[in-house]
Amino acid sequence: MSNIVDFDDYFNKSLDIRNFNAPKNIIAIGQINPISGDFQYNAEKICRYIKLAISLGIKTIIFPSNSLGGHFIEDIIKRHPQVENECKKWLNGIAEISEGITVILGYINNNIAVIRDKELKEIYTEAKDFCITDDKITGSKIVINFALTESKGANILDTHDKLSCAAKENSLPVIYVNSVGATDNISYIGSSAVFDNNGELIYRAKAFEEQFCVIDTEKKGILHRLPVNRKNSEKFSLDYEYDLERTYLTVKQGIKDYFAKCGLKRAVLGLSGGLDSTVCAVLLADALGKENVCGISMPSEITSRESKSDAKQLAENLGITFKEAPIKQMVDVTSECFGDLFKKLENSFGGRYEVSYTRDNIQARLRAMYLYGVSNEFASCIPIATSDKSEAYMGYATINGDMSGGFAPIADITKTKLFALARWLNKNREQKDVIPVSVINKRPGAELAIDPKTGKPLCAEDALMPYEFLDEIIWRVENYGESYYEMLNSEFLYEKNNSVPAEEKRNWLDKFFRRMSSALYKWTILPPSIIVEQNGINSSEYNQPVTSGRINYKSTVQDEINLFCKEI
Amino acid sequence: MSNIVDFDDYFNKSLDIRNFNAPKNIIAIGQINPISGDFQYNAEKICRYIKLAISLGIKTIIFPSNSLGGHFIEDIIKRHPQVENECKKWLNGIAEISEGITVILGYINNNIAVIRDKELKEIYTEAKDFCITDDKITGSKIVINFALTESKGANILDTHDKLSCAAKENSLPVIYVNSVGATDNISYIGSSAVFDNNGELIYRAKAFEEQFCVIDTEKKGILHRLPVNRKNSEKFSLDYEYDLERTYLTVKQGIKDYFAKCGLKRAVLGLSGGLDSTVCAVLLADALGKENVCGISMPSEITSRESKSDAKQLAENLGITFKEAPIKQMVDVTSECFGDLFKKLENSFGGRYEVSYTRDNIQARLRAMYLYGVSNEFASCIPIATSDKSEAYMGYATINGDMSGGFAPIADITKTKLFALARWLNKNREQKDVIPVSVINKRPGAELAIDPKTGKPLCAEDALMPYEFLDEIIWRVENYGESYYEMLNSEFLYEKNNSVPAEEKRNWLDKFFRRMSSALYKWTILPPSIIVEQNGINSSEYNQPVTSGRINYKSTVQDEINLFCKEI
Repeated sequence: MSNIVDFDDYFNKSLDIRNFNAPKNIIAIGQINPISGDFQYNAEKICRYIKLAISLGIKTIIFPSNSLGGHFIEDIIKRHPQVENECKKWLNGIAEISEGITVILGYINNNIAVIRDKELKEIYTEAKDFCITDDKITGSKIVINFALTESKGANILDTHDKLSCAAKENSLPVIYVNSVGATDNISYIGSSAVFDNNGELIYRAKAFEEQFCVIDTEKKGILHRLPVNRKNSEKFSLDYEYDLERTYLTVKQGIKDYFAKCGLKRAVLGLSGGLDSTVCAVLLADALGKENVCGISMPSEITSRESKSDAKQLAENLGITFKEAPIKQMVDVTSECFGDLFKKLENSFGGRYEVSYTRDNIQARLRAMYLYGVSNEFASCIPIATSDKSEAYMGYATINGDMSGGFAPIADITKTKLFALARWLNKNREQKDVIPVSVINKRPGAELAIDPKTGKPLCAEDALMPYEFLDEIIWRVENYGESYYEMLNSEFLYEKNNSVPAEEKRNWLDKFFRRMSSALYKWTILPPSIIVEQNGINSSEYNQPVTSGRINYKSTVQDEINLFCKEI
Repeated sequence: MSNIVDFDDYFNKSLDIRNFNAPKNIIAIGQINPISGDFQYNAEKICRYIKLAISLGIKTIIFPSNSLGGHFIEDIIKRHPQVENECKKWLNGIAEISEGITVILGYINNNIAVIRDKELKEIYTEAKDFCITDDKITGSKIVINFALTESKGANILDTHDKLSCAAKENSLPVIYVNSVGATDNISYIGSSAVFDNNGELIYRAKAFEEQFCVIDTEKKGILHRLPVNRKNSEKFSLDYEYDLERTYLTVKQGIKDYFAKCGLKRAVLGLSGGLDSTVCAVLLADALGKENVCGISMPSEITSRESKSDAKQLAENLGITFKEAPIKQMVDVTSECFGDLFKKLENSFGGRYEVSYTRDNIQARLRAMYLYGVSNEFASCIPIATSDKSEAYMGYATINGDMSGGFAPIADITKTKLFALARWLNKNREQKDVIPVSVINKRPGAELAIDPKTGKPLCAEDALMPYEFLDEIIWRVENYGESYYEMLNSEFLYEKNNSVPAEEKRNWLDKFFRRMSSALYKWTILPPSIIVEQNGINSSEYNQPVTSGRINYKSTVQDEINLFCKEI
């Protein structure tokens, strides 16, 4: 370790590096957080890192893919070719300062530039994940992996396994350079790493932080902690513990970068006293600072006293701005006006439902109007969509209501994981127990309608199915692509502790596929939201036509199909 | 022509085909409109076409790509592998009935199946656009183009040119089989075509209609009309005439198929008396039937008497359901409640704007609430987002207001083209002049605020720039990828007839790129909308991170960049 200095804090504290002179085998990695299309901002970071490397006598520095252009600007360049010219100029500018050093720079659209001693030597277009450099570039043969795929975090351990194998098989060191920071939906984990030619992990950079890393490809260096623990079980489990820190950091970085890169500062959200808005408030306060978060309690007639006091308590605990703004008066006037219109339409338009969700939705929409009003009236402030993933699957969220907003922090986290996250936050944040216990203990419900059976606000699980069961369906579909019958014929975790009649299980599965098929439209208008899991329904990764709602997810017998085709 | 029968209306009228017996060289094309994932529905169509071909003694029938699975189900299959098994069973079912015929079927994910005499002979995965069949398959050598790219309509003439060249170069007949119907955003034009081995167009199927086509690859057949006329000029023009029929049919099919394939029947929209909602209403009435369209006039204090009477007149002309539902009372109560909240927040949260769009947006959002209320209360009915393309580029639309809805019919049509379309509709629909002339003659404006200079409702062009100029910027960016300076230094059509000071032109261009960069978020939550033009901003074709708003679209001097990099 004697040759390795950890430069993590170089740009904050000023380490004494005057006597450091990098020996051979020493390579630097610039693990930076680029902004898409902001060449000046990105180039400034790149140049600072290069200059530091030069001052240390380091002969090679590597930057992750898209470090100069930022991620996902392919389409921008197709429309605005001028932007690519501009990028080239910045590349030239970077070359100009690269005296006595080799810069290997993932610069734009998965293209890699090699700059040596002020000259742009080569550009590899459409680079593959693995690039083997020759002796001419770095002085020794190494493999560089530019993290073009699978760089988000949920499967970082699998990626590390693959890299280790690749190193061992080729008997060459492998350097894995990953971005950090979030671009809209994607929150990159960083954790750039080096494996020696035996496949042993000898260096790992910080997760979720920019870093100037100095590595020796032949000696063991610093292994920064990876906020991921491999889980043994391949079955669905309510024990999310191993993944909560990563989940928290992924979303926190996602919020922080979305706001910063959009030039926003503040968030306003409705605080219902329920789990979703509560967890969102904590995440926002941590990402943006408590002074930049405003929680509004907007009770209606259905809102319980407990919900109101939970919302207030949470805001006090967090120290965020909090106000109460009842919606009763607006609900009454709106309902009356709506009633007049519906009456007029009843005869001429026809087809009026006997029972509808109109009044439920009026409440959710007026609340969103309040929040958008605050956004309109107060600078640099956007409203937050608090929908979670279980609800997104079920379409259990109101259009222009709770599912609307400028950003959706938890749209890729299921309800049962949110419960676990809430408990984790109470234990692991510096300030303990900010989330009132009653929020974690009560059964979730939107408090938009009264359950005629109980006379109390309708619980979500009564309208849908137990969240534990629902979340296991989601887990099985996303991770194993299990079919209707595979799920029907295998035991769910929920069934271990609860007796579920076969009929009811079938009903729940039917309901899942039916509701999911009707929720497709809602998926298309979900605000930008941080991807947390693999294989979710975020529109930047998964596309399904809204008009494909008629898919039969069950299985049909071949003979029936043959008969159908024959008899047409 | 003696051997060719036009079977267009076969399934409607019952033609006498008992004596028809297809000679050699006769091939059938099944130009069908599939539903994504609905194998039974698609297989039924395919089987009916195959059976008809068999009954005619035809030895070969070709279906366009994705005819069995529908378009864009790749991601569905990745998540639900069971769906692919199901598709295979239906393929087997189709094979079972294919006695004495060769079926070349684009079935799923751009895979092509060849079935001959009840046997599944071959599957071509990842088929390219051009497939040359050998003598074994069709009895003679032909080229089949499965329209895997560029099949939407806006560039159908270019496609035909390429196909003609390909036929000539290879001295082989080319058969172009295209889908018809819309899948969410994409409205396929149909117009399957055949070119003989000299490159001459010898057959063209109907546009925007399903068709069973019988073609002779050696003889000239029927050339159905293509609703596209090639425009000579490569410059921006306000003469949209050549493209209005295609635009109309593209959107009409898009609306019709979205509703039908989603199991919807009816639409409700706000009728403001303005151009956007007026054109939407006509398109909806034509696509869904006037009995299925409900227009609501929702005047506020700012709404002019003319706007109200124009809305009513249009509804009467079209024969759609029409009601008036003023929003004044709701605006007043909401504004009062909002005022209370803002006052409370002023001190604790800070950063309140002196001037805001809050009241403008309250009006737009309450109107959307009305429409969503109708959607909640009346069966099979969704609200319509009436935003146009010029507004989408400028972000000149209210979130959860006029830009929200279940479907956005005109989001890919610019304002100047909409004016032309309105005039065209008045001339070319069976029922003439349904659109009141005053709608076409007045200057567009949202009527959400009063212009302090004139004391009248604010006009959009005063807030933005002349639509003719704006739409030319959009045209230049989308068609030529022109840069800021290229536009600044060349003459716009608008400048031919109006004197524009250089300063003002710069301001307008600056405003365009500034407003566009702030509108990126709005693009992500735009409801499903029909793509009309090439290279638009529809999220199914164009992706730009919301966080890329800081792109500098102008050009920087290399020396300045070098200096910047040096001085860091």
